[in-house]
Amino acid sequence: MQIPDSPNETLPEILLFDVFGTVVDWRGSIIREGEELGRRNNLDVDWAAFADAWRGKYQPSMDRVRRGEVPWTNLDALHRTSLEEVLEEFGVTGLSGEEKDHLNRVWHRLDPWPDAVPGLARLKRRHVVAPLSNGNVALLTNMAKRAGLAWDLILSAELVRCYKPDPETYLLAAFLFDLPPEKVMMVAAHPDDLRAAAETGLRTAYVPRSLEFGPGVQPEPPDPAFDVTAEDFLDLAEKLGA
Amino acid sequence: MQIPDSPNETLPEILLFDVFGTVVDWRGSIIREGEELGRRNNLDVDWAAFADAWRGKYQPSMDRVRRGEVPWTNLDALHRTSLEEVLEEFGVTGLSGEEKDHLNRVWHRLDPWPDAVPGLARLKRRHVVAPLSNGNVALLTNMAKRAGLAWDLILSAELVRCYKPDPETYLLAAFLFDLPPEKVMMVAAHPDDLRAAAETGLRTAYVPRSLEFGPGVQPEPPDPAFDVTAEDFLDLAEKLGA
Repeated sequence: MQIPDSPNETLPEILLFDVFGTVVDWRGSIIREGEELGRRNNLDVDWAAFADAWRGKYQPSMDRVRRGEVPWTNLDALHRTSLEEVLEEFGVTGLSGEEKDHLNRVWHRLDPWPDAVPGLARLKRRHVVAPLSNGNVALLTNMAKRAGLAWDLILSAELVRCYKPDPETYLLAAFLFDLPPEKVMMVAAHPDDLRAAAETGLRTAYVPRSLEFGPGVQPEPPDPAFDVTAEDFLDLAEKLGA
Repeated sequence: MQIPDSPNETLPEILLFDVFGTVVDWRGSIIREGEELGRRNNLDVDWAAFADAWRGKYQPSMDRVRRGEVPWTNLDALHRTSLEEVLEEFGVTGLSGEEKDHLNRVWHRLDPWPDAVPGLARLKRRHVVAPLSNGNVALLTNMAKRAGLAWDLILSAELVRCYKPDPETYLLAAFLFDLPPEKVMMVAAHPDDLRAAAETGLRTAYVPRSLEFGPGVQPEPPDPAFDVTAEDFLDLAEKLGA
C-alpha cells in the first residue's frame, strides 16, 4: 500500500484481525495446558501432535456447517465434538465430562503473541480494532479479558451465522459502520483468509507467524497482491503510520 | 439482592447497561453541541427544548419498527429522520446536509456521567460488561472510544434486529454466553427497561440518574422488585462486591 500524504483519506478506518494463529499462539497454548493435564492425570500423550490433530478437525467441522450438512453450530460446540474424536485417537480415557469441558475451553485461554497486546493498543489509537474470527463471541470475549486484548468491539462469524471464508463474515463490519469495504482491512497470518477478504473488497495486511505450526514450518511468502506485509503488529502500526 | 458469602455462585457473570441516560448524559451533550452550532450559525434556538423534542421522537420511531410498519432501520437512520422533523419544528433552516449529518452523530459523542468510566473499569474486573442499547453498533463503538468506556464487547439491539423492550434483545447475552438468564443483570436508569428485562429472567440493577431530564424532573423511586438499587456505578460495584 502506498502511504499517502494525507493518510486519513485512504487509510482503513477499521482493522479486522484473524485470531487463531494471527493474534494468539493456539498450538503453544494447547501444548502448555495439555502437559499440565497430562502431569495431573498421568497421561502419556504427545501434546504437540494432539494440538495439531485437534486443529486439523477445525476446517472440516466448519465445512460441514458451511455446506448445510449440519445446522448452525458455534465453534465451542464444534471443538467439543472434535475433542471427543481426538481423545479417542490418542487413547486418552478416564477424563470426566467436567475435565473435558474445561480442556475444550482452552481455546478461550490462548496466549497472545508477544507483540499482540502492545500492537493493538497502538493501532486502536487511530483505527477501530476488532477480531473477525470463526471463534464464537463468548470465546473471543473471554480470551480478550484474560490476555488483555483491547478490542473496540467483538466481531465474530457467529453474528452472521456462517464461517469464514463466506463473504457475509468479511462484510459485516462495513455493513455495521456504513462504510465502503475498502475502508476495512483484514489482518491475518493466512493468505487464504486474505484472498477471500480481498474478493469482497476489503484491504489486506499479511502478518506471517513463523511459529504458528511449530518449528520448521515456514509461512507462505508475501503476495504482492496484499496491501501491506508486516513482521508483527508493531511493524503494522509503523507501516500504517499509527 | 442478598450478598452471599461465596459470591461467585450467585453473582451475575454479565452486566448489561442501558446507555442513553444510564451511562451517558444525552441531554446535556446535545445542549452543549447545539449551543456551539448555534453560535457558529447565528441560530436562536432553545437547545434544551430541542434535545427534549428530538428525544421525544425516539420511542415512537422505534415503535414503528417494532410494529412492522417500516422495515428494520437502525437508530442512526431513525435519529436522522427525526432530526429533519425537529429542525423544521424549531424553524432551523440553512444547515447543509453535511452539517445535519454531523449533528445527527452527536449521539456518537455523548459525554458519560462522571462515575461511568471509573465504575465500569472497576466492575469489569469481576464481570463481563457490555452495553445493551437500542443504539446501533457503530454508535456505541464510537461513543466508547471517545469517552473511554472500557466495554468487554458491544451488544446492541441491532444485532438481533429488534428494539428493547422486545425479549430477544435482553436474552442475546445469555444465548451467546450459554448462560441461564439469571447470570445476566440489566443495569438501567429506567424502571420500564428493568421490568421488561426481569420478565425474561434477567436480574436488575436500578441506577436512577436525577439529572437525565434536566433539573427538577425526579426519577421514579426504587421498586423493591429490583435486585439492587445503586446511586451510581461505583456504588453498584460496592454493592456487588466488585
